Amino acid sequence: MTKRYHDNLSQGRTVEQKRELVKVLTKETARILNAKEDAVRVLIYEVSKENWGNAGVLGLDM
Amino acid sequence: MTKRYHDNLSQGRTVEQKRELVKVLTKETARILNAKEDAVRVLIYEVSKENWGNAGVLGLDM
Amino acid sequence: MTKRYHDNLSQGRTVEQKRELVKVLTKETARILNAKEDAVRVLIYEVSKENWGNAGVLGLDM
Amino acid sequence: MTKRYHDNLSQGRTVEQKRELVKVLTKETARILNAKEDAVRVLIYEVSKENWGNAGVLGLDM
Amino acid sequence: MTKRYHDNLSQGRTVEQKRELVKVLTKETARILNAKEDAVRVLIYEVSKENWGNAGVLGLDM
Amino acid sequence: MTKRYHDNLSQGRTVEQKRELVKVLTKETARILNAKEDAVRVLIYEVSKENWGNAGVLGLDM
Repeated sequence: MTKRYHDNLSQGRTVEQKRELVKVLTKETARILNAKEDAVRVLIYEVSKENWGNAGVLGLDM
Repeated sequence: MTKRYHDNLSQGRTVEQKRELVKVLTKETARILNAKEDAVRVLIYEVSKENWGNAGVLGLDM
Repeated sequence: MTKRYHDNLSQGRTVEQKRELVKVLTKETARILNAKEDAVRVLIYEVSKENWGNAGVLGLDM
Repeated sequence: MTKRYHDNLSQGRTVEQKRELVKVLTKETARILNAKEDAVRVLIYEVSKENWGNAGVLGLDM
Repeated sequence: MTKRYHDNLSQGRTVEQKRELVKVLTKETARILNAKEDAVRVLIYEVSKENWGNAGVLGLDM
Repeated sequence: MTKRYHDNLSQGRTVEQKRELVKVLTKETARILNAKEDAVRVLIYEVSKENWGNAGVLGLDM
């Protein structure tokens, strides 16, 4: 079965950071789970500051 | 463990509504589950009318 | 559109806590978003201690 | 209970494709699961090429 | 990019229903989106009656 | 904001594999995104072979 990551991140990451994240997460997951790299999928959901909250406070207000 | 909400909402809510949603959901969850408020995370995914459907009909066509 | 909550919770909550969580989340969401209660859905995913981690440590080891 | 689909798709699909996807998924699900069509919800998350990766490579670089 | 379905279903479906659901969803999605069938993944999350609620009422109490 | 992973994995991984997965994913994410490790959460959803399908075929039948 495909191993799948959903990363929920704040907006503002560079393409280079996303490129490295996909590469490293895939490599490490395949190593740890003895799986093939082409069975690993990564999905990044970028969330704006007005759409997340921690401990009752909106990101926008932090 | 962190209690986490993913709210799927139609686009068009005000920041003030989101602010209150995060505040109230966090407070009530901590009360009901005897947890600390700083263990509660809220994530809001806004979905446009062309990206959801109920009973076989696209939101755009309702 | 239906407003939908996915609550990720540690295992071990009582049915009574879940009943109250569904009731209160639905009522407060409908109030805050001026929506009807029958447009609100709640889904609870229970996660065992060996299946979540915070700050690099497995729940089981906390 | 509501049957719910979350479709993760690359950006770039037409409204007409989404309309047909919602209609057909709903009809077939209701048939296969002996459920009512109005108990089926479909949510489409569109993901840009810089936010997904297969086998360690970013969509943008494929 | 891989098209991915997350189906949230009440517990109690037969393996035969799941087999047909995976087959039909994959075939129809590939047709509608002009994609290859091997780019389609389906994930089924089964939810017990005490872990979902509609319109403020727990599934268990319906 | 908290960076959050949802890993969808086939059942059958050892606790030791999950422990290492949480540790390595957290460390690498914090490094790549210049974030603190305690802002990283990992959630593992284990899916049985009858609840996932690739290219139209149920995991059970592969």
